[in-house]
Amino acid sequence: MSTVQDLRHPTALSTDADVVLRPLDVKDAEITGGFWLDRQAVNRDSSIPDGLRRLHESGVIDNFRTVATGSGEARGPIFADSDVYKWLEAAAWEYGRQPDERLLAEQLEITRIVAAAQEPDGYLDTVVQLRRGVRYSDPAHDHELYCAGHLFQAAVAQRRATGRTELLDVAMRLADHLVREFGPGGRPHVEGHPVVEMGLVELYRETGRDDYLQLASRFVEERGHGLLHEQDPSLDLTYFSDRVPVRETRSPEGHAVRAVYLAAGAADVAAETRDRDLVDALAEQYTGMTTAKQYVTGGLGARWEGEAFGDPYELPPDRAYAETCAAIGAAQWAWRMLLSTGEARYADQIERMLLNAMLPGVSLGGQEFFYVNTLHLRADASPDTERSAANGRRPWFDVACCPPNVMRTVASIAGYVATGSDDGLQLHQYATGRFAGRGLSIEVQTGYPFDGTVDIAVHEAREGATLALRVPEWAAGATLDGRSIEPGAYALVDRPLHPGDRVALQLPMRARLTEADDRVDAVRGAVAIERGPLVYALEQVDQPEGVVLDDLRLKGPLEMAEVPGPGLVEGDIALRFEAVQIGRGGAPDRGVTATAVPYFEWANRGVGPMRVWMPRV
Amino acid sequence: MSTVQDLRHPTALSTDADVVLRPLDVKDAEITGGFWLDRQAVNRDSSIPDGLRRLHESGVIDNFRTVATGSGEARGPIFADSDVYKWLEAAAWEYGRQPDERLLAEQLEITRIVAAAQEPDGYLDTVVQLRRGVRYSDPAHDHELYCAGHLFQAAVAQRRATGRTELLDVAMRLADHLVREFGPGGRPHVEGHPVVEMGLVELYRETGRDDYLQLASRFVEERGHGLLHEQDPSLDLTYFSDRVPVRETRSPEGHAVRAVYLAAGAADVAAETRDRDLVDALAEQYTGMTTAKQYVTGGLGARWEGEAFGDPYELPPDRAYAETCAAIGAAQWAWRMLLSTGEARYADQIERMLLNAMLPGVSLGGQEFFYVNTLHLRADASPDTERSAANGRRPWFDVACCPPNVMRTVASIAGYVATGSDDGLQLHQYATGRFAGRGLSIEVQTGYPFDGTVDIAVHEAREGATLALRVPEWAAGATLDGRSIEPGAYALVDRPLHPGDRVALQLPMRARLTEADDRVDAVRGAVAIERGPLVYALEQVDQPEGVVLDDLRLKGPLEMAEVPGPGLVEGDIALRFEAVQIGRGGAPDRGVTATAVPYFEWANRGVGPMRVWMPRV
Repeated sequence: MSTVQDLRHPTALSTDADVVLRPLDVKDAEITGGFWLDRQAVNRDSSIPDGLRRLHESGVIDNFRTVATGSGEARGPIFADSDVYKWLEAAAWEYGRQPDERLLAEQLEITRIVAAAQEPDGYLDTVVQLRRGVRYSDPAHDHELYCAGHLFQAAVAQRRATGRTELLDVAMRLADHLVREFGPGGRPHVEGHPVVEMGLVELYRETGRDDYLQLASRFVEERGHGLLHEQDPSLDLTYFSDRVPVRETRSPEGHAVRAVYLAAGAADVAAETRDRDLVDALAEQYTGMTTAKQYVTGGLGARWEGEAFGDPYELPPDRAYAETCAAIGAAQWAWRMLLSTGEARYADQIERMLLNAMLPGVSLGGQEFFYVNTLHLRADASPDTERSAANGRRPWFDVACCPPNVMRTVASIAGYVATGSDDGLQLHQYATGRFAGRGLSIEVQTGYPFDGTVDIAVHEAREGATLALRVPEWAAGATLDGRSIEPGAYALVDRPLHPGDRVALQLPMRARLTEADDRVDAVRGAVAIERGPLVYALEQVDQPEGVVLDDLRLKGPLEMAEVPGPGLVEGDIALRFEAVQIGRGGAPDRGVTATAVPYFEWANRGVGPMRVWMPRV
Repeated sequence: MSTVQDLRHPTALSTDADVVLRPLDVKDAEITGGFWLDRQAVNRDSSIPDGLRRLHESGVIDNFRTVATGSGEARGPIFADSDVYKWLEAAAWEYGRQPDERLLAEQLEITRIVAAAQEPDGYLDTVVQLRRGVRYSDPAHDHELYCAGHLFQAAVAQRRATGRTELLDVAMRLADHLVREFGPGGRPHVEGHPVVEMGLVELYRETGRDDYLQLASRFVEERGHGLLHEQDPSLDLTYFSDRVPVRETRSPEGHAVRAVYLAAGAADVAAETRDRDLVDALAEQYTGMTTAKQYVTGGLGARWEGEAFGDPYELPPDRAYAETCAAIGAAQWAWRMLLSTGEARYADQIERMLLNAMLPGVSLGGQEFFYVNTLHLRADASPDTERSAANGRRPWFDVACCPPNVMRTVASIAGYVATGSDDGLQLHQYATGRFAGRGLSIEVQTGYPFDGTVDIAVHEAREGATLALRVPEWAAGATLDGRSIEPGAYALVDRPLHPGDRVALQLPMRARLTEADDRVDAVRGAVAIERGPLVYALEQVDQPEGVVLDDLRLKGPLEMAEVPGPGLVEGDIALRFEAVQIGRGGAPDRGVTATAVPYFEWANRGVGPMRVWMPRV
């Protein structure tokens, strides 16, 4: 058994873990202003309370009561419990961020309702208990371990952020049951939806119970050998991440959320078991994803059918699935890769995904959600299904995985901003806040993601402690204290730091045009507009009357003027430029002034035509 | 009750029908040689016998026996009966084409097995009888009328092609039951999958029973008002063609096969009820489809999710669904529109769809099928599901709608070649064969679809009878007896015809490059290669070693040389031209000689990378 630190963040690592960077303690990382604090306030005031109401309404909290009272039917999908657990996790992190006794009371009340449904031997999955009666009878579809994984994450969050252990007790009873069932001497088991791997490793970190880590490792290794075909030979192994072992996967495939949750869990196992081969394999898989299977927004999953990754270079903007949960899961994976390798590209990825692939998944008011994040909505798109972009964001879903997933991520986002190493502190994301660890305590002020000026004030500095700042790969021309620095790497502050010192980072926020790899057939001849860390989009509402978005073409070298954005968030900036509208039915082409806004803001002023990729003439 | 002619072809019309053109009698339309006769021979010798074996193996014929004996469980999907009916239809048309007593005996044996499962009141749907026990309890999904529609079509085929009436007796008992259940005074009813409309109208044509026509009309009119939401408000009405009434649909949407079967049935109703408003609405819907929702191959359905039409201009080649059945259903729809309007564009459509969207659905050996017809297969495409192109054509499917659908269409294809009108004979498709009607009897000789020479010998000619020949829209430079004729219309032979006369049609078979509408984002900057009525594709197997298909680009004006094809069908022609392979990893671009073959031939020499749309540089 290893010694476990009292770090209090997601992925707080054991002292044995083989990593380059380590997360900061919860109390040492705090967003105190600016863009992300506004998002966290909306999350606290709007998303989290509304989410609890929706969970009550949809009956998935009642499922726990029904099990406890012994009579009634389950409501909701087979994985309904997990939505409750993700809300519990969100509420816990939110309480840790800004204590509110009423929220804690609610969180503990739901915890009690959950605990009352647990079987004496530790088993807990209300929909299986109520609807099937038989445990582990359909591992491909029953999501029992998936629910367990989210319970473990919630329990760890409750412990780390509130100090309470009620949910941890439930989690450990369930984990002990899983060890008896599937641990040493138990039967091999592959479940359809990974996430238990991350949950078990976190539980190991919190409790020091090595058998939890070993079970997580076992679940990672047992996958990818087609074990699910023993259940049913007609199952599509690709969908369930059971076709190729994790160590041999060169590019993620199948259901995007499942694939990235599995990879993130494997990265946790790799760090804690000091398995560099596994880290290398995961790094290669990550590269396979970014090279050919990721949208410019960071979004993942090109196919509605199976909510899946497409083949390499299959990235249609109009039919992008880019599930909100996939971006969150991949940010978790990238975070673990960052800890293990210290490579800036993973922090770049987190920035891209959180701002352009997760954040568009929630309305700026906090109570409507996109499950699917399209990059192109046509004028006459059919609002055919619940998830169609033409319906705009929805208050909730029958499958409600995304909303509480956004909530828990926004509440805990300070944890992704900075890390510590033996050398000092590393700043990976730019947000106004306080960050401390490894002998350094700093305060950051910035108008990010719209403004590229990052002011850092040093409050405490141990002698020899260094400060490293990520220079995003897009930030050509960046300067640190007036000195040029290389993008796509970390810039070290190359002087001794003392309390009262100030450090000035300048990231040039110039609008730029991005071309895709020429093998991405779906956007051939088109460009995306980016500015700083933000991907932009053209929305119908911002264009002059008579403009048909799908008839707009960009021409020649583009001069993009920065103008005030729609004001949906503080300080937002729009881009204005000249474009050509193709004449139809004999009408001549004509010049028009077009406007682009940050993609995450789209569909917050009604829903209408939108494009990220613009054809050039 | 109207008088019904003794015409013996699909869509034999009643004398009351308001149409411009009328189908020929079965005995008056015969393919006697060339391309389609080879396909019919394969269909007879390979597809139809193998199909019967598969139907036996899959248990769907046993379902009828199980109902009759009263014990056992259903096998196969809820619509399993329909596969048997389509095979019965195929066998009937094949017998009519070339009588074979063994085939007829088999057809009648299956007919007896089917008949024995019918309930005393006429109801028949074995899977519902065995699995549900309750009739019409889940109209969205249970396919009871869908199965009935295919039974009616098979019964009519048996009667017209073999003269036997055993299946017609079963069909009429079932139709009478449907009239009692859903006819005048019955309850409104919308079923999830149209086809019963076509079946009922054909049954009306065969029997003169006006109540069948009225029921078909009622089913057409009751759709599109959201009646399915009375069953379940969460149903996606778009998918089931129940969102917009047929008369108001400007572009097909939802599940492609359902949408085109419904439109074809509505066209039948329109012709027989002399409803020109309905014909006009269907013509507008057809235009909506060809303008923005059809692949260059004629394929229909841009989405795997829901097997559905996409939004306008959403036509990804790589994720084309283009179900084989959708092309067949749309050819049936186009045929009915051709009869009602006499417009050449519908015959152009039938040509495009049969050669480039249906025919690719079956291997040239006749025993393997594509359910989904992609226009682009990448080198590292995942063979993730049964229907993935990377798996190549499959011997059969769990959902086996496509194979017997191809069989019945190939067996009856002579019926689509020519029509009669008050003026004379119209030749819509070019195939070696004998065609007679309305005072003209002709014999056609042609090497179509590879050779554009069509020789027509007149055997009989009534005075004043005219011969009209479709000039395909692609056939610029066509000549008739040496005289220039306009493409995209019918050319009249402008002289009195006498027995022994010869008519010479020349359709220039020049290879050409086709661009899509510039709103089709997925193929921007790319071209397709066509020659005559055939769409071409580049297959890996035909390229020089080292060529990476997805790195090939077409450059400048293309000179395409005609060379012998792979010899998979008699007289096939390939196209050879210079292209550029993009250098990767620092390697320079290089010129390569590329080869394209007819798209319908692809994946008959193993399955590998393939492209229809080629990017230009």
